[in-house]
Amino acid sequence: MNQSQLFGGTLREAPKDEVSTNAILLTRAGFIHKLMAGAYQYLPLGVRVLRKIEDIIREEMDAVGAQEILMPALHPKENWEKTGRFHGFDALFKVVSHFDSEFALAPTHEESVVPLAGRSSLSYKDLPFGLYQLQTKFRDEPRAKSGLLRGREFRMKDLYSFHADEVSLDEYYEKIAASYARIFKRCGLDALRVKASGGTFSKFSDEFQTVTDAGEDIIFIPEEGDALNRELVPESLHESESKTTVEHDGKKWRVERAAEVGNIFKLMSKYSKPFGLTYTAEDGSQKDVLMGCYGIGSSRIMGTIVEVSHDKNGIIWPEAVAPFKYHIIPVASKDNSKMNEITKLASQLHEEAESHGGALLDDRADISVGEKFADADLIGLPIRVVISEKTLDKGGVEVKSRNSQETEIVASRDIFK
Amino acid sequence: MNQSQLFGGTLREAPKDEVSTNAILLTRAGFIHKLMAGAYQYLPLGVRVLRKIEDIIREEMDAVGAQEILMPALHPKENWEKTGRFHGFDALFKVVSHFDSEFALAPTHEESVVPLAGRSSLSYKDLPFGLYQLQTKFRDEPRAKSGLLRGREFRMKDLYSFHADEVSLDEYYEKIAASYARIFKRCGLDALRVKASGGTFSKFSDEFQTVTDAGEDIIFIPEEGDALNRELVPESLHESESKTTVEHDGKKWRVERAAEVGNIFKLMSKYSKPFGLTYTAEDGSQKDVLMGCYGIGSSRIMGTIVEVSHDKNGIIWPEAVAPFKYHIIPVASKDNSKMNEITKLASQLHEEAESHGGALLDDRADISVGEKFADADLIGLPIRVVISEKTLDKGGVEVKSRNSQETEIVASRDIFK
Repeated sequence: MNQSQLFGGTLREAPKDEVSTNAILLTRAGFIHKLMAGAYQYLPLGVRVLRKIEDIIREEMDAVGAQEILMPALHPKENWEKTGRFHGFDALFKVVSHFDSEFALAPTHEESVVPLAGRSSLSYKDLPFGLYQLQTKFRDEPRAKSGLLRGREFRMKDLYSFHADEVSLDEYYEKIAASYARIFKRCGLDALRVKASGGTFSKFSDEFQTVTDAGEDIIFIPEEGDALNRELVPESLHESESKTTVEHDGKKWRVERAAEVGNIFKLMSKYSKPFGLTYTAEDGSQKDVLMGCYGIGSSRIMGTIVEVSHDKNGIIWPEAVAPFKYHIIPVASKDNSKMNEITKLASQLHEEAESHGGALLDDRADISVGEKFADADLIGLPIRVVISEKTLDKGGVEVKSRNSQETEIVASRDIFK
Repeated sequence: MNQSQLFGGTLREAPKDEVSTNAILLTRAGFIHKLMAGAYQYLPLGVRVLRKIEDIIREEMDAVGAQEILMPALHPKENWEKTGRFHGFDALFKVVSHFDSEFALAPTHEESVVPLAGRSSLSYKDLPFGLYQLQTKFRDEPRAKSGLLRGREFRMKDLYSFHADEVSLDEYYEKIAASYARIFKRCGLDALRVKASGGTFSKFSDEFQTVTDAGEDIIFIPEEGDALNRELVPESLHESESKTTVEHDGKKWRVERAAEVGNIFKLMSKYSKPFGLTYTAEDGSQKDVLMGCYGIGSSRIMGTIVEVSHDKNGIIWPEAVAPFKYHIIPVASKDNSKMNEITKLASQLHEEAESHGGALLDDRADISVGEKFADADLIGLPIRVVISEKTLDKGGVEVKSRNSQETEIVASRDIFK
């Protein structure tokens, strides 16, 4: 991609109405733009990151045999009344129609996927199965000041699994926990599995939490064993500051602030019951289908990566989710023949990079090399490649990792080796 | 994909509450499921078709240099008040929040993309550019009985272009018209370019219409020259039945019912003005940016394909958008060694097909070969491959095109050649 053509240049000033690091850096670097609190537009660079994250999630979901579906955001009121959530779910947006009753604008899809699963009658032979989607969710958030970490509209992968018995549910649950660990790792994110309360239907749930001051959760991490969400430790410890250490249950715990990037729940029959979702057991009887649900916020992953992977100059993208791997920066020369050589090599490397992670070519005229370097740091592509008279004299191009200060001269033919 | 594992088997009965051919066939064949009128769930087969259509659109948009973005569905009320559409747009859904004013749930994105385009000041050097998204739209439809042809929630590609002058807009408009023609052709759809009224801002717009009795439009097709939407012919002709011929303007016109699968508009400064979207001209003055907008309904394309490409037994997918190219059907044999040979070959072809358009392998036990054939016709994959004792005796497998009655025996090693 030629940077001169890219929609969404960098901005010198931090947006006035943003307080979170992820929103400030992503906005300045040209990845997102705020339409209103909690609702962001993704610019071309942002779409590329989001798509890479979602492709990783899709690959890992397909790898465990879950099947991709796509469900509407607009849900009939009746389905949410059936589960008691039309009035019982605070963050539920309601949609007004001229022609019909109200609709729910879905923050989660149990009310949609359960009737879908019961589309035709189920036998024990059909179970277990898992259905997932990569889709847009809506939540009526009172505070939406954390950029991509808490949106009124956000991207999410939600998976629902259907089982004949608890053994099958437990096994699937652990399989997805392992899949989630792989997803976060591939996205370059450290995410801890943390025990949390299970709601009304199950004793525990599990969260995946990334330690960052930008997070809204407080987690307790023991020297050994399961980390716990604050809600599972005694109330006397609730007010512990993050970055401290406490004693509890005979162990020492680090207290950390963290952002929840995924969660998994055993729903048991909580949502199958209201919709009468049953299956025919081997003995011919009808039994309630048991369910699990598993969520990952893909847009929240994008925001969390920026929170944990940046420096004072800008974003540092992990390679797997970077919009491009290389940032190619030709430096202008007054010598016409040198300039031709530089331009030609830049364009050749740009093209070759297509099959090696892609490149953004800073072909902008009338921009100083200092500004180009500052923009490259802000945008945060993994590898910067500078081509100048000086580097050519030294026999190649100058290569620098975004997360290192060291540069080296590499022969241009060796860059993609 | 193993058919025994596929979520969403075929249904024997037509859904009681559907009247449109596309909804009936897509529901019975396991591509979609109705959540409520105008809002459909896409099952795994349906997601595959939708994704293939959207990938074709994306490729063609990228090919003309348009840049992909992603905008929220939730829009601030103020933006729609600025353009007079918060109360002026009948089909606009409104969203109620506990914490804030109402929001608009976007059926179109001028109110979002114009402020985005003005994110930083524009110069004549930045123009023209085009921004598109593949996204979910919402419309408060009084009648939503046409399956995927008219949804309250539907998938759409919308592109917006930004220009310094009309010459640039006209040129871009024709470039997109040509791109649309390629998109429909690649999707296996005949779509006519039809002149229609331009709304308040431009004399004409252009629609892309596919002739089908399921359509809601009436178009007039001359022997030579531009086809016209009914709204551009004299009122006395408005009541003409489809499938008739009329005289008008010294020409003979076929009157046909048609479904609009795309439309393109010159918006001029209609939406740039209310948001003050200007650019700095070469002479330093500020001028209004001119705009075009270009829409294609990807879910509507899916429905329209089914309307025009089916027979009494089911859907006939064009290869480019079929969920899989091959339907492999092994036929059970009582001879164990033959059965092993059949199963082994089926699984081998299934695997090889991965790099040749993919295959659905009908590995279901306890289903008669007659039922398997009926399901294959209903689902409508382009090529059926039957493996049985008989075909092996004849030296291969039996291959049949979905849109032909003829079968031929092909050596299994030659199938993918």
